[in-house]
Amino acid sequence: MTALDFTHDPSRRSWVTSAGSGDFPLQNLPFGVVAGPDGEPRGVVRIGDTALHLSGLAASGLLTGEAQAAAEAAATGTLNTLFALGSGPRTALRRALHALLIEGAPHQEAVAALLTPLRDVDVLLPARIGDYTDFYVGIHHARSVGALFRPGNPLLPNYKWVPIGYHGRASSVRVSGAPVIRPHGQLKAPDAPAPVLAPTRRLDFELELGVWIGPENRLGTPVGIDDAESHVAGYCLLNDWSARDVQTWEYQPLGPFLAKSFGTTVSPWVITPEALAPFRIPFERPDDDPAPLPYLDSPRHRAGGGLDIELEVRISTARMRADGEQPHPITRSSSRHMYWTVAQLVTHHTSNGCNLQPGDLLGSGTLSGPDAGSEGSLLELSRGGTGPITLPNGETRTFLEDGDEITLSARAHRPGAATIGFGECVAVIDPAITYP
Amino acid sequence: MTALDFTHDPSRRSWVTSAGSGDFPLQNLPFGVVAGPDGEPRGVVRIGDTALHLSGLAASGLLTGEAQAAAEAAATGTLNTLFALGSGPRTALRRALHALLIEGAPHQEAVAALLTPLRDVDVLLPARIGDYTDFYVGIHHARSVGALFRPGNPLLPNYKWVPIGYHGRASSVRVSGAPVIRPHGQLKAPDAPAPVLAPTRRLDFELELGVWIGPENRLGTPVGIDDAESHVAGYCLLNDWSARDVQTWEYQPLGPFLAKSFGTTVSPWVITPEALAPFRIPFERPDDDPAPLPYLDSPRHRAGGGLDIELEVRISTARMRADGEQPHPITRSSSRHMYWTVAQLVTHHTSNGCNLQPGDLLGSGTLSGPDAGSEGSLLELSRGGTGPITLPNGETRTFLEDGDEITLSARAHRPGAATIGFGECVAVIDPAITYP
Repeated sequence: MTALDFTHDPSRRSWVTSAGSGDFPLQNLPFGVVAGPDGEPRGVVRIGDTALHLSGLAASGLLTGEAQAAAEAAATGTLNTLFALGSGPRTALRRALHALLIEGAPHQEAVAALLTPLRDVDVLLPARIGDYTDFYVGIHHARSVGALFRPGNPLLPNYKWVPIGYHGRASSVRVSGAPVIRPHGQLKAPDAPAPVLAPTRRLDFELELGVWIGPENRLGTPVGIDDAESHVAGYCLLNDWSARDVQTWEYQPLGPFLAKSFGTTVSPWVITPEALAPFRIPFERPDDDPAPLPYLDSPRHRAGGGLDIELEVRISTARMRADGEQPHPITRSSSRHMYWTVAQLVTHHTSNGCNLQPGDLLGSGTLSGPDAGSEGSLLELSRGGTGPITLPNGETRTFLEDGDEITLSARAHRPGAATIGFGECVAVIDPAITYP
Repeated sequence: MTALDFTHDPSRRSWVTSAGSGDFPLQNLPFGVVAGPDGEPRGVVRIGDTALHLSGLAASGLLTGEAQAAAEAAATGTLNTLFALGSGPRTALRRALHALLIEGAPHQEAVAALLTPLRDVDVLLPARIGDYTDFYVGIHHARSVGALFRPGNPLLPNYKWVPIGYHGRASSVRVSGAPVIRPHGQLKAPDAPAPVLAPTRRLDFELELGVWIGPENRLGTPVGIDDAESHVAGYCLLNDWSARDVQTWEYQPLGPFLAKSFGTTVSPWVITPEALAPFRIPFERPDDDPAPLPYLDSPRHRAGGGLDIELEVRISTARMRADGEQPHPITRSSSRHMYWTVAQLVTHHTSNGCNLQPGDLLGSGTLSGPDAGSEGSLLELSRGGTGPITLPNGETRTFLEDGDEITLSARAHRPGAATIGFGECVAVIDPAITYP
């Protein structure tokens, strides 16, 4: 875990005016990739409402050593090479950027020339994703969904021992803003003699934290729990869109497949472990729960393996937008509800020797809280589709309708620290195609 | 499906002597990637026991048009670009190669200069794999394995409607020859109060056909059944190594994960749809089984959607090799046992709009036959580990021991056609590491 340093001091401010409020102050400095009018993708750092071009910075002569190496690595159009460098160069670049962007910094004119307003660029997927793995560490989600299927036995026996996960589909991960087309799939009513191919009628969102992998481990080489954080390049929001009716029919015995692979949306900004260092919390378990097996446990991990990030989901229907209404919050939750930490996910994933590579993506699983109003999916909010939620304008929802727009957001704050935001992870549901 | 042409004529022979017998006659011409002493990967075509360098051929002036474009695409060190071009350029190159390699062909000296004996090169993975999807279309395997868990109800209700599949791990796919390290995993005996992390005790192979994807479909665009074959670049053998004890404990409710992701082995030669054209067979279903849903059915598909390829598994133990004994055949099966065809896999996979990309890999699932001696895994051969098999030297096996080497091979033949072989998919089991 990262020690705090001057880059976390909340009293420091940037000369970039728009960094004075909102998700992206001087203490955040997330990485991303944008394309300007020429369409060429370029690695950037976000500060306020602007993007600082790292290729330009690398050419400016203002950086040296590891910071220069990191800026050069990020100039390639995807962040995979930067991710591969690990925390040393990333931290050096963070400190150099902090020194260049703070009030009173030298070279402000040269740096200002490298800033582009975000309204003038397209924000792209930050990395080429090799493999995408989705976990299931939201215990309240697992319990709620389990209770819909197995009222007497909602959590399976392995849940408190194994960080349950499955391989997801990398090719259909898209950056925030890209619409999601309602997918077709095989649907079968319990009393129907046969399934039909039709557009899903139970389209859902899932509120997840995403993790970008940094330096690889070689095939056959597990990553120990105290080394796991060094394989994390950063964090994002992830919406694991799900077709519940397709899932119900297809998922036995090998798990979710086409119910998920039509699309996954991630937020574009790679929030660094350094930016989130003030929001580490102890890893704790209820007294009655088993201790993790030794490979998933250590004193250091117990002291600061957790993360405290507030999460929110808002919905905006087509009618709300036509009427000029703001998106309506339907869920407030927290990364505190992860039963397994990110370090435990990395260690477990590699415990069989599986190699993680720079740009691989992990999803946490749906991060529901224990209480009403903290459900991370409509499946939970509507109690399996039996109890529609009512929006302020009187519209009701059990699952998503065409034109609905879902926005995930996240923010970390505590007294004595600058607020760190993730930006938005947003997508609208487009109607199903006419099947060929 | 591909019509037969002069490249399939079994009476034609190559001037490359080693093509006169074995798996790689003039009618095969699979693609692959090799590295010579300089370590540089190069796209090649295999003929007999030699590799024809396509970059050299592209520079030779002997090709024109689409054949030249295909050779240039294959010169890059992975075959992804060639795969993306589809069947037109691939077929043009096949015809040009056939004309250059047939007895009496012109320019023999120039072409011979581009041939390298395979013993002088390393054979590499042929493509950069984006996503890897593993299916479950071996109905005899599904029924046998299901019967071990659910004696009264071996096949789940969705099996005859849905081509069941799941996302696999792409990063740990390795080419034939690379050893497989026995993985650690969480193991839990039924009567134990808690699991332990330990090397798997039930390590198994799975005999599968692999499919390399060619031209992509855009996200949101399903591929119709009669168009599905045009998205296939070629075929290989695939060994889906499995840790059965890890799988039993981890797989509920989201399917196989670490029980599979420690390694998958593929054969290096991309056997083209053109080479396999003589071995198409009708798609047929038992009379009592439901007809496929309309999106998975067409007259053309019924006429030739299937494939007839003989499959074999051999085992060689460390003691057998020390004693100079040959590998011992333990399984003979066939691609005829696929309940769903490759076209149906592509169409189903994309039916929700999921995009397949050049270099994506599909596995068929374990292709067991209905009879003793045709089981595609040790789980089946040993009836769930209860009945060890005995090898000719008296050794017994329920699951794989360290030092065991498994070889998959495949061969297609019928009267009036040249035999087309796949080469070998081989790997040895290395001992588990000492866990860090």
